[in-house]
Amino acid sequence: MIRVNVFYPRKEGARFDWTYYLEKHMPMVSRKFGSAAKGVGVEQGTSGGMPGSPPSFVAMAHFTFDSVEAFQAAFTPHAAEIMADIPNYTSIQPIIQISDVKIAR
Amino acid sequence: MIRVNVFYPRKEGARFDWTYYLEKHMPMVSRKFGSAAKGVGVEQGTSGGMPGSPPSFVAMAHFTFDSVEAFQAAFTPHAAEIMADIPNYTSIQPIIQISDVKIAR
Repeated sequence: MIRVNVFYPRKEGARFDWTYYLEKHMPMVSRKFGSAAKGVGVEQGTSGGMPGSPPSFVAMAHFTFDSVEAFQAAFTPHAAEIMADIPNYTSIQPIIQISDVKIAR
Repeated sequence: MIRVNVFYPRKEGARFDWTYYLEKHMPMVSRKFGSAAKGVGVEQGTSGGMPGSPPSFVAMAHFTFDSVEAFQAAFTPHAAEIMADIPNYTSIQPIIQISDVKIAR
């Protein structure tokens, strides 16, 4: 299993429209990925490790796939449409990371 | 539900002992957290968004709890022991982030 992580780094004054993101963007992406995505998660950053300290990321999303090839097959046909939707909810440039899932329970 | 994320930023020449981390550190932390931790995950970074590009994080771990208070109650009594174990597997200073879980499926 692999996981595709999308990180939105916290930036002073940056725009992030949670309503659009949760109600429009994520459902659209989930529809495009279809059954190839075995899991979906979204987190809203609330703090760093110390209470009251700022989080590194405003938002994080992750999608679980069987393999990198399964992700690429699901993403590539829709990449342009998915990427074009990003400015509709944020001014932040997301960081992508692909990982191997070592523990999931 | 909240999630406590532990990020290990990739650094040239940094040490990360995956065997110790997966076989000693994570089981010890999971034992200390006990049933307060509703979920546990570990990912090994393999690439950035572009094939062949480096990942931002060598490793990421996350723990799901019912609330920040539940995390603090589980972590605080064992904080010193958990933190003291980190140099046994890595030279990287981890970054902690606490998030609200908005979507998990």
